[in-house]
Amino acid sequence: MVLWFSRTRKRSEVPTLRSRSESEPTTKVDLAALTPDLRTFLGKAAYLQLVDFENLSVAITSAPTAEAKARLSTAASLTLAQHHALADEIVRAALDVGEVMGEFSAEIDALTTRLMGRDWPEMLVTCHITAGFLDDFLARLAAGLQRDVAGRVIKSLESDVGASIVADHIIQAIETDPLLGSRLAMWGRRLVGDTMLIARYTLESEKLTDPSQHDSVEARIEPVFTELIASHTRRMDALGLTA
Amino acid sequence: MVLWFSRTRKRSEVPTLRSRSESEPTTKVDLAALTPDLRTFLGKAAYLQLVDFENLSVAITSAPTAEAKARLSTAASLTLAQHHALADEIVRAALDVGEVMGEFSAEIDALTTRLMGRDWPEMLVTCHITAGFLDDFLARLAAGLQRDVAGRVIKSLESDVGASIVADHIIQAIETDPLLGSRLAMWGRRLVGDTMLIARYTLESEKLTDPSQHDSVEARIEPVFTELIASHTRRMDALGLTA
Repeated sequence: MVLWFSRTRKRSEVPTLRSRSESEPTTKVDLAALTPDLRTFLGKAAYLQLVDFENLSVAITSAPTAEAKARLSTAASLTLAQHHALADEIVRAALDVGEVMGEFSAEIDALTTRLMGRDWPEMLVTCHITAGFLDDFLARLAAGLQRDVAGRVIKSLESDVGASIVADHIIQAIETDPLLGSRLAMWGRRLVGDTMLIARYTLESEKLTDPSQHDSVEARIEPVFTELIASHTRRMDALGLTA
Repeated sequence: MVLWFSRTRKRSEVPTLRSRSESEPTTKVDLAALTPDLRTFLGKAAYLQLVDFENLSVAITSAPTAEAKARLSTAASLTLAQHHALADEIVRAALDVGEVMGEFSAEIDALTTRLMGRDWPEMLVTCHITAGFLDDFLARLAAGLQRDVAGRVIKSLESDVGASIVADHIIQAIETDPLLGSRLAMWGRRLVGDTMLIARYTLESEKLTDPSQHDSVEARIEPVFTELIASHTRRMDALGLTA
């Protein structure tokens, strides 16, 4: 049963020199063609990790017991470590963290307002479901960065072991209150839609807004979303929730 | 000017075998006679550090810029490290962190409600003033623990380098809004009273409630409060606020 609690992480591929036109079968679809420039990627990704941390802080503040606060604070420090790893890459690129994140913060704030749950269990589901989806998405998008940066960023995005702590508390909350399950299932469904909007916002924007590229862009995004929705469904199943 | 921003930390003394009745002059008054048992000390101190972290989280969430969020998140991770150092001591004593903190969390929650500021600058002042006072107080109280634990706990309580980040933002906020200074000065005065109540709550309770010991207990507490209020005044001065 312990396996249930740990989010399944698949290793994203770092881009190789293999031509994209090769039609050999692969189970892994990547987003490298839609990766924005380094500055944009890091600014958006670092700020999104900060939002994850803020969501966890709300969950800590509203936690009903000292034990839950203590355990979630471990998850919060792991999420902060992810943010700091991305912030370190911004510094490594000789850029200013506040300035780079600041370019995207207003739009991300607007996109993430809808993620605020009404109470503790909803907030926990946000922390688990949105962070899980976005970390996976960003790890794939990072595959389009230059190789050394990509390796470090992907490693950091895949390092979130706090997910099991959060999942554990959601499962406990549902066990205590049987009616909670259906409410959280609905919340999870709403979240995945909002999270896909946020994911789209991290893609290279010129291609997204160019009508002539619309079809090829969608053809790239859709299989990734299909895979990540499958991961989302497994995550919801593990919580005992219907996706 | 940079010196202004770093909270002055004095090293607390680890208890020695020197008799208390020795009347040699000392500038450092200690609280070792009022230190509660290890479990109570660690439970209260660890939970108070978690409250510090929650206050910083509120400050991060309400911060006006991505830059402020990024810098304060560094302060938050340092505060979390302090909490985790105390939680580690609870584990080392073969106790359960959630259970031990849980005994005191309801009372501490009630005592700390009054620390919630109405807006970002007030919240920052809380993070700076209350955490500064309590870390100093707890470091002195820790001197009454057994020597090895005392050494580690004091080191951790004195390690908070996030204070300069918080102070920096308060000074910037006051520079931008001249009227803010007098409001924050009033807020700081109210906070120090509330913080002294919290400090008293961490003392060994039997002695506090025994009428026959009242005078000797007060005689121990007062000089410590006098010293810590002097530190508080220096901290307020450094912010440009009248204590």
